[in-house]
Amino acid sequence: MRIGRFKADGQPRIGVFEDDAVRDVTDEFEDFRDAVSRPEDAADVEGETFDLDSVTHLPPTTRENAVFCAALNYEAHAEESDIEVPEWPLVFMKLPRTLVGHGEPISYHTRVTEEIDYEAELAAVIGEPARHVESEDALDHVAGYTILNDTSARDLQLGLQVGDDDMLDWFSGKTMERTTPVGPYVAVDEIDDPQDLEIASRVDGETMQDDNTGMMIRSVADLVSFASSRVRLEPGDVIATGTPEGVGTFQDIQLHPGETVEVEVEGVGTLVNTVEEADE
Amino acid sequence: MRIGRFKADGQPRIGVFEDDAVRDVTDEFEDFRDAVSRPEDAADVEGETFDLDSVTHLPPTTRENAVFCAALNYEAHAEESDIEVPEWPLVFMKLPRTLVGHGEPISYHTRVTEEIDYEAELAAVIGEPARHVESEDALDHVAGYTILNDTSARDLQLGLQVGDDDMLDWFSGKTMERTTPVGPYVAVDEIDDPQDLEIASRVDGETMQDDNTGMMIRSVADLVSFASSRVRLEPGDVIATGTPEGVGTFQDIQLHPGETVEVEVEGVGTLVNTVEEADE
Repeated sequence: MRIGRFKADGQPRIGVFEDDAVRDVTDEFEDFRDAVSRPEDAADVEGETFDLDSVTHLPPTTRENAVFCAALNYEAHAEESDIEVPEWPLVFMKLPRTLVGHGEPISYHTRVTEEIDYEAELAAVIGEPARHVESEDALDHVAGYTILNDTSARDLQLGLQVGDDDMLDWFSGKTMERTTPVGPYVAVDEIDDPQDLEIASRVDGETMQDDNTGMMIRSVADLVSFASSRVRLEPGDVIATGTPEGVGTFQDIQLHPGETVEVEVEGVGTLVNTVEEADE
Repeated sequence: MRIGRFKADGQPRIGVFEDDAVRDVTDEFEDFRDAVSRPEDAADVEGETFDLDSVTHLPPTTRENAVFCAALNYEAHAEESDIEVPEWPLVFMKLPRTLVGHGEPISYHTRVTEEIDYEAELAAVIGEPARHVESEDALDHVAGYTILNDTSARDLQLGLQVGDDDMLDWFSGKTMERTTPVGPYVAVDEIDDPQDLEIASRVDGETMQDDNTGMMIRSVADLVSFASSRVRLEPGDVIATGTPEGVGTFQDIQLHPGETVEVEVEGVGTLVNTVEEADE
């Protein structure tokens, strides 16, 4: 089953996504956090069905949730970044307000950045609260999987001068307004092994990243376990698991307004968004 | 006027704080974000009055808001940290779920850290949405001021090994569960100049930090302006403005369970919390 959020007739709704349609199951749940904590209850709910082309996708999380992102979690990406693998997972956060749904524009804030980049990532969505869980139990707390395109303003992320050194600026580089696509929905009970999924990104149809989630340094379970050692994870929280090698910046490739980025993860789906210059 | 949040009879409420009492003004507002966007409307609301000793203080922000923290924003603190002043403000974020109110315990998570530290900070609370505001207009978007004790797990923040180097781990060091006191309330229209306030911290009565907000490298207005260049600021968002020199770690001082930390900011009040070993 695929559960997510969408907007139709101006109203945000919770829906079960099928091939060309989405079924409204909003009334079954208190909110989306409730929905991902018991998605199976959506299966038999009767609700209005909307043509998928007629709705706006919303990120499959809420404003009250957290978005945790692992950096440097594929060996070859750490190598292309010329950074060693950290002793424990290096995690940064994105504000929920920076997220956009499938099909929505990726805002390119040309007032403050001149270099934005794609990053294909598998993301887990928490279904049951998790605090100090061990890796072997961690996936029991995951409702399902979605896709996150961890776009980055590279000139800001990598370019903060501190004396003679550069410092990583995760806030400026990763958290700008409406820059981060996530979705299209949460794939529940469709993934047998999150460490054996093809993952790829394409820009205007050209393949930029093409790898397998088996190449992660820390597994999804390890990352959920780690994050739960710092803070209580809650239903609807998103754990993005890092990007494979092939990001643009180390190949002198930048995204431009009008370009379309697709991120595909086997068994989950394809997240498609077009870069658009921000009008603010 | 001092507006904030508290819990009484098991219910979270919005209140106007007076010397020994708090007046419930919950029904006047949709939520706390609404309250900080028009706090003046609380002035004449009649509501049940509670003895201050009988209520639990809650952080004066909401789960849907963001908490932005400036690092290295007092010259002498940058010096004691042995880090140069960054070219633009270095900002990290705290999850709202890491916050606790005035009088609540600071959780010491001894399962994962052996060194926690205090940081006295003046914090601005946004009252009107702000996006790409200039410094000279920024304070028009501030509802008022509160206090934030930006406690840090120093062994994690400063100790992430990456090859032969250390990397700053803002997530582990700054965002653990229920570690960050903020409050007691938002002081509205009581501060003429946020850059001329005495700021101090005390541990069990001994002064650890004693400075003036005039010593900030970037002013409150500059920080609000900067954050608004990255993301749209919303009513209830918190901008913590960095800590003066005198944090514990560079003096080999750590906090211990049972110790009480007071942070006092002139014109705002005093935020008092006791360290307690986490029982999870």
